[in-house]
Amino acid sequence: MAVTISDKHLMKFMSCEEYTAIAPQIQAAHTLLHKKEGLGNDHLGWVDWPVAYDKEEFDRIKKTAAKIQSDTDVFIVIGIGGSYLGARAAIEFLKSQHYNALPKKTPDIYYIGNSISSTAMAELLQLCEGKDVTLNMISKSGTTTEPAIAFRILREMLVKKYGKDGARQRIYCTTDQKKGILKKFATDEGYETFVVPDGIGGRYSVLTAVGLLPIAVAGADIDALMQGAADARTDLMSTDLEQNACYKYAAIRNILYRKGMAVELLVSYEPSFTMMSEWWKQLYGESEGKNHKGLFPASVIFSTDLHSMGQYIQDGRRILFETVVQIDKPKYEITIGYEEGDSDGLNFLEGKTMDYVNKKAFEGTVLAHTDGEVPNVILTIPEVNEHELGYLIYFFEKACAISGYTMCLNPFDQPGVESYKKNMFALLGKPGYEDLRADLEARLK
Amino acid sequence: MAVTISDKHLMKFMSCEEYTAIAPQIQAAHTLLHKKEGLGNDHLGWVDWPVAYDKEEFDRIKKTAAKIQSDTDVFIVIGIGGSYLGARAAIEFLKSQHYNALPKKTPDIYYIGNSISSTAMAELLQLCEGKDVTLNMISKSGTTTEPAIAFRILREMLVKKYGKDGARQRIYCTTDQKKGILKKFATDEGYETFVVPDGIGGRYSVLTAVGLLPIAVAGADIDALMQGAADARTDLMSTDLEQNACYKYAAIRNILYRKGMAVELLVSYEPSFTMMSEWWKQLYGESEGKNHKGLFPASVIFSTDLHSMGQYIQDGRRILFETVVQIDKPKYEITIGYEEGDSDGLNFLEGKTMDYVNKKAFEGTVLAHTDGEVPNVILTIPEVNEHELGYLIYFFEKACAISGYTMCLNPFDQPGVESYKKNMFALLGKPGYEDLRADLEARLK
Repeated sequence: MAVTISDKHLMKFMSCEEYTAIAPQIQAAHTLLHKKEGLGNDHLGWVDWPVAYDKEEFDRIKKTAAKIQSDTDVFIVIGIGGSYLGARAAIEFLKSQHYNALPKKTPDIYYIGNSISSTAMAELLQLCEGKDVTLNMISKSGTTTEPAIAFRILREMLVKKYGKDGARQRIYCTTDQKKGILKKFATDEGYETFVVPDGIGGRYSVLTAVGLLPIAVAGADIDALMQGAADARTDLMSTDLEQNACYKYAAIRNILYRKGMAVELLVSYEPSFTMMSEWWKQLYGESEGKNHKGLFPASVIFSTDLHSMGQYIQDGRRILFETVVQIDKPKYEITIGYEEGDSDGLNFLEGKTMDYVNKKAFEGTVLAHTDGEVPNVILTIPEVNEHELGYLIYFFEKACAISGYTMCLNPFDQPGVESYKKNMFALLGKPGYEDLRADLEARLK
Repeated sequence: MAVTISDKHLMKFMSCEEYTAIAPQIQAAHTLLHKKEGLGNDHLGWVDWPVAYDKEEFDRIKKTAAKIQSDTDVFIVIGIGGSYLGARAAIEFLKSQHYNALPKKTPDIYYIGNSISSTAMAELLQLCEGKDVTLNMISKSGTTTEPAIAFRILREMLVKKYGKDGARQRIYCTTDQKKGILKKFATDEGYETFVVPDGIGGRYSVLTAVGLLPIAVAGADIDALMQGAADARTDLMSTDLEQNACYKYAAIRNILYRKGMAVELLVSYEPSFTMMSEWWKQLYGESEGKNHKGLFPASVIFSTDLHSMGQYIQDGRRILFETVVQIDKPKYEITIGYEEGDSDGLNFLEGKTMDYVNKKAFEGTVLAHTDGEVPNVILTIPEVNEHELGYLIYFFEKACAISGYTMCLNPFDQPGVESYKKNMFALLGKPGYEDLRADLEARLK
């Protein structure tokens, strides 16, 4: 099993009976999901995707990535939410948070169109100066404002640099298979396109072309990534909570939520997991934060944030629990040496690895926080590679679906995201939103 | 006034009477702080620091920064919590999140010793290959495990590279003025030292040598930074809430907390504010998260996270409020152009700046979220520069102290941070912790 779960540091806060009591609800959620009878059942494309994905497109992604690696210094991912988070999370976790700065044979990768900051855009334009640049515009419809603005500006830059024909060879659009203004535009202009499949929501799209092209450009093995997800799909089917870490995690979240927990803190001891936590926050926050329900998803990196959020976690309001993602084997090891004189008092660690110390920090923290009445769930993965990551992604995706059904909501929609967009369009004077505008402007005065 | 506050989008959730009702408590907090009669009154060095700081050391910081700029490719800040967050936050906000990647005359800057990840350390060692490296070790005592381990490893690297004498010219220690093992070691080895002053806690230390040396190395104007803080110190003295945005913010936080709000979300529309929010999270979380009290501090960047956390904020559990930090004038402006054919449907924005669109996103979001029953407080600063940042830092520091006293706790201690350390030391077999070890190990079995 690529992801294991431990509830050892949880049983002080709940009884075994609670598993028995919630099991029928987990069973019901499983049935809803696999019989496709639950809310949002038009968005279940991700369930079989690790085996059902388009093999021809997959090969084309690998070929395109190789071409991009050969002719590109700066690869720019244009997308917001699920259209960049998964790719960035996977690249930083598999490669490095310092992926761009480290020596490598693959292009630098930047993410834009995920804000409306002119400063972020101006800096990116600076970073492109004198470099060979390729764009990957990612948007199901093409109408999302943030990436659309970035794409317009960067397209202009590319046309200036390479001419219209040259630019055409350096623009890839990941979008709807048939409809939408981006699909039409790409077809008209002759840009190569990849597919954001129907039936897979943005936050579930990292294993489609949305995530796969950038991840492949970074030099990661996307075959192994898909195999990991496929293995998870096979493994995580049992409705016996003792046999299925994924369903057990979903059960625990619901048990703790119903006890009054308001915040789930995702914890990792590896800084390279930072963006994975951001991906997780979208997955869970957007899936469950509705109908005035849901756990507020937050994240920390330890021991880093033990020196910032640690005090609150240890002794603030008792409304939170921690889910720790532990990695058995680190990517690199470093052994602590001996020092004559022991000026820093660290010689008691001589011959120990940093990871050994990191693991003791983890153990000490779990005990300290549970002493402070913070329930701890521990998920463990064996190591950092594409297979384990694919497995973990599918694990979290499926746990989210099961957890959401258990919480009695539609885990696959996000109606609340429209509210700010509608207001923004009206305030910007976008055609079709005239009626709303005057009202909003009056409220702002 | 360099920071203004608007409660326009708050008055739906509270009445004016509540300001009147809490004013005496704010007045009392003000008196406790300025008469130095409150809890933690041995940690009030930051109050007058913007005028009382050591001018001689300040000049030496500037000279040292100039030397480092002249002989260093990679400047490494070794520190955890308050010993790196403020510097990193200021540098990313003033310069860029892409500070290292952008063309510049100042050194690359990396932050280490803020985790125990061997992967993070191994990557940093790679990044140093073939580069001229300088270290700034920052620790009041020198005994904090994370930076101590990093310092031992990097010192060894430096000695290998430059010899013992050469390394000596490239190691700067920011530590206690007189005592502690780092001070002793630095003196013995002949490293230049700067002071972590007594009476200023880690989370309040960004305007001391702790933050100032790295910030100056990045090429920022630390005179203007201190002047901004000094101006805030003068401005933010009135106990009339209508005259003092800082006290009003402290009052609002307490009013909303007592209504049952559990989470305060710090919001910015500039990605470069990301680490400022992390700094803010330590400041507020560590100051108030105690005695089972306090607002859980979280942060988002919009519109980025409207596509991840937006759904939860709009329609999840109604336990949160937002504090938005708006910046009137962005660092760079970009105007959206006209496109023949309007393939992306954006021509209605022709001639508008990106920042105009960003501001409309902000307005639309405030209205959407208040419609969703999320109270919004708006803080506004005029622009991104050292003076405004110094002002904002002092504003948040003072508001935190006033807020903490109003919440009836000691805003300046952090007893909970010791819990994990003690356990970790025992599990690592550190001399002096033998008694605890067997007990902890039994609990882990």
